[in-house]
Order: sequence, then structure tokens, then C-alpha cells
Amino acid sequence: MTEPATRRLRLTLAYDGRPFSGFARQRDRRTVQGELENALTGIAGSPVTVVGAGRTDAGVHARGQVVHADVPARLAPEPVRRVLNAALGPAIVVRDAAWVPEEFDARFSARRRTYVYRVDDSGDPDPLKRGFVLDWPRPLDLERLREGAAPLVGEHDFAAFCRRRVESTTRRRLRSISVRRVRGLVEIRLVADAFCWQMARSIVGHLLAVGDGRRDPDSTAAVLASRDRAAVGNLAPPHALVLESVTYGPRGASAPRTPAAPAELTKSAGDR
Amino acid sequence: MTEPATRRLRLTLAYDGRPFSGFARQRDRRTVQGELENALTGIAGSPVTVVGAGRTDAGVHARGQVVHADVPARLAPEPVRRVLNAALGPAIVVRDAAWVPEEFDARFSARRRTYVYRVDDSGDPDPLKRGFVLDWPRPLDLERLREGAAPLVGEHDFAAFCRRRVESTTRRRLRSISVRRVRGLVEIRLVADAFCWQMARSIVGHLLAVGDGRRDPDSTAAVLASRDRAAVGNLAPPHALVLESVTYGPRGASAPRTPAAPAELTKSAGDR
Repeated sequence: MTEPATRRLRLTLAYDGRPFSGFARQRDRRTVQGELENALTGIAGSPVTVVGAGRTDAGVHARGQVVHADVPARLAPEPVRRVLNAALGPAIVVRDAAWVPEEFDARFSARRRTYVYRVDDSGDPDPLKRGFVLDWPRPLDLERLREGAAPLVGEHDFAAFCRRRVESTTRRRLRSISVRRVRGLVEIRLVADAFCWQMARSIVGHLLAVGDGRRDPDSTAAVLASRDRAAVGNLAPPHALVLESVTYGPRGASAPRTPAAPAELTKSAGDR
Repeated sequence: MTEPATRRLRLTLAYDGRPFSGFARQRDRRTVQGELENALTGIAGSPVTVVGAGRTDAGVHARGQVVHADVPARLAPEPVRRVLNAALGPAIVVRDAAWVPEEFDARFSARRRTYVYRVDDSGDPDPLKRGFVLDWPRPLDLERLREGAAPLVGEHDFAAFCRRRVESTTRRRLRSISVRRVRGLVEIRLVADAFCWQMARSIVGHLLAVGDGRRDPDSTAAVLASRDRAAVGNLAPPHALVLESVTYGPRGASAPRTPAAPAELTKSAGDR
């Protein structure tokens, strides 16, 4: 008997984070990875492992999470997508499924992760959006938010904004933080090569204190330099954070190290 | 001892219909009216009755429901609003509170009710919106929806679209049905002087069958004329229906019968 030939499948996912104890598989907990692996194992008839671009925390949502899995080559992506949606819905939606080269790695080939945090500071929150928008009791000043965010952009040791994992660096490159008001809501968009654990929620928690006047925008540089997690204020709650997209280089594989940025294949879901 | 003087309070409400067995009070069930009456009774120190503009069904949401209640005149609207929000949130939000003349009746003075039904027919539903958007498996044709809706506008006996209540008429005036695509979603907006029981969901259920090609747009006139509830297809599910606003005449009281339409006081919540 020979092992069945496998091919690498890339899935783009949206999910409502509320029912899940985060993305990463945990024993006896409902997780996104766990649900996906169980469903794919059922389809494949043999154990399937799923690798994701972002290990979102409990309660954090996604509109553009990307994962890969090696599945039997006899399967076809579109039918797999439909079977997964029937099995996993409505909290998880597989938005796209495609074969990718075996060099593609959803986690290590990813070049950018984009997270968006949404806040309603109107004092008149929409109860229909309470599952994915933070109700903030004080008005936010967008200029202060931008001033407070600016020192974070670039490559830094984000130790002050990271929950530590053993033997992992907290050095990251934050590409941009943009702040805008969209149909009444404040949207804080963070783009980085990669995020350390709880980095997005730590940054947003600090910025909310700057934006509503409790902290000075100048405090950001000192917090960053301190590398001390105690210097950051409260972590922003998870339910208003969405992993909107993950970006890969051409061919969906590792980015070549060339001076000129190549055209990018963006699995973006934030524009709908 | 004299009875304490009361004044009439008008409240504008938003709520997430999911946790409630509808608006109208029921014994041993969680309802919007029940929660409001309990909270207001606690604030007033004596029993308070709430009258609402629209008796929304279980699971139906609101962004602009209007109610009135007679409460002790020593209270002030804005503090009552804040105490109610602290007691009722986050599924119910009191958006506005104001004294109104005692002739104002949230139910009988209302001149227009506006409901909006939202549908995602993309085949790529957003799981974050699954609590208030219907995921529809087939593409909807907006022109067919509009053609199918047109015969319903005007004053008719809507018996085919109403679940019967004893001793109540099913004659209603539907002011307009508009259909548009907003950021990918199909929005069906219904404006009527008043709606009979399940009328909005019955109309939308019929229109979805027209819009996806299973029924002919010409069938609407025959269904309406039949006055037969069996002639309508499935009732659309409640979770995608929102009572967006209720409109009153000037002074928030009954509309004067004059040829020229007076300026209207609209407690609209659909623009946020």
C-alpha cells in the first residue's frame, strides 16, 4: 500500500470569534483550528493538520484569516469549501479555497497581517453591533490617536505591548497604524509583518487612553522604550478586533528579498 | 395623601431582538416591554406601564422603537435614560428620553413605521453580521424585487400577508417599498401607516421568492387579491428585520387632517 498523494490547500476564512476559545487548538475547547481540523479529517479520511497565519485570541474575529492544510490530491478545492461551509457554518465561513505550491506556508510565507479595531464613542451604541464594536464611554480625538500611534510605526522591540511567550522575540515591524471615522465608528487599522501575542489589543488599549485624554500622546515613546508591560494601560477587549487580511508575495510563497516591492497577492476581505 | 403627579415620558429605543421573546410583555418570558416596565417601576417606586409603537416579534430588532410611559413628574428624562441604560444594557439602549404632551400616544399617534430587511445574497456571508442579516443562497435580482413589490403599495386588505388576530382588520396603507444594494447587502425598506401581525416578514418572504426567480413578479397581485395566507410562501426569518424608525406629526401628537403635509418630527435612527 502506498500513502495517498497530498496537495497543499489554502483556505481564506471569516469567523465570528465569540463561540471560540481562540484560533489555536486546545484540548476540550471549541477552537477554529480544532473545528477545521476535525472537519477536514472527516473529509480526507485521515488526520489533517491546519496551519494558520494568525493565532487570534479568544473572542477575536476574522474576515481574512488564511490557513493551509495538506489534503488528499483526489479532492477539489471548491467542493471542499462547500462541504466545510455546510459543516462549520454559520460562525465560520470558508470564503475561498485553492491549491497552492507546497512551498506556501500560511504562517511563515505571510508578509503582512492587517487588524482593525472598531470603537463607538457616540454614547449611542448600536446594540446590533455590540458583538464586534467596542462601546466607549468618552469621545475620542482622532488627532490625539494619530499622534499617540506615530512613535510605534517602524521596527521596534514591542516588549511593552506583548504578552511574553517563552523563547520568542518581541521585535516586530509595524508598517502602519491609521485612524479614521467610518459611518460614525472609529476604526484603528494596524498593519505589521507580524504581531506578537496581544500586541494589537495592547496598542489599542494604550491609544484609547490617549484618545480620550487620560494619557498624553507623548507617553507612547516612553512606554515603548520601557519594554515594560506594566507601563501599558488596560488591554482592549477582544470582541472589537478583526483580522481583516493577510498578504503574501507572488505565487503565495515566501517573499523574495529584492529591493523593489513585487506586486502582491492580497487575500483582502475588508472591502465588502 | 394625594397621588403623585405624573408626566408622560417618550423613549426612543434600539435593541438586539435575539435575547427577547418579542416586544410585548409575556408572563415568564424575557421581553422588551417587560424589562422596561420592571426598570421603570423600580425607578418610579410604583407600577409603570409602557406603550410601544410597534409590537416587534421574537427576534426582530429595533433602532428606532418609540414608547411612552407615565412616570412621576419629579423625575427628569436624561437621568432616567442613564439609569435605564445602566440597568438594561447592552441588549437594549435608550437613545433618547423627553417629556411629551399627555395627548402623545406612542402607538396611536404614530403616522409611519419604517422597517428594513437586510439580505446577503453573495454566497460569501459575513459571520459577524449573521445576527441581523439573512444569508440567502441564491442571487437576488433587484428589478424583479421592485416589480414584485409595486402592486403592494397603497391601501389594501393585506389578509394574505397577515397572521390574524381576533377582531382586528387587515386593511393597511403601505406607503412605499424600496429596494437597494448597500455595501453589498440587499435592503428592503417598508414604510406603512401601520403593519398587521407578521406583515413585513410575509411580504419579504414572498419577495425573496420573486427576487431569486422561483416566483413571477406578476404573482403578487394575485396573492394580494386572494386574501389567503396560504398563497404566500415562507415567512422570512425574524433576525434580519429591524424597526428603524417611527414618525409622528408635529408636537409628537396625532396628525391633523390637513391637505398640506405638515413638517414631521422623525425619530429616525437609520442614518447612523
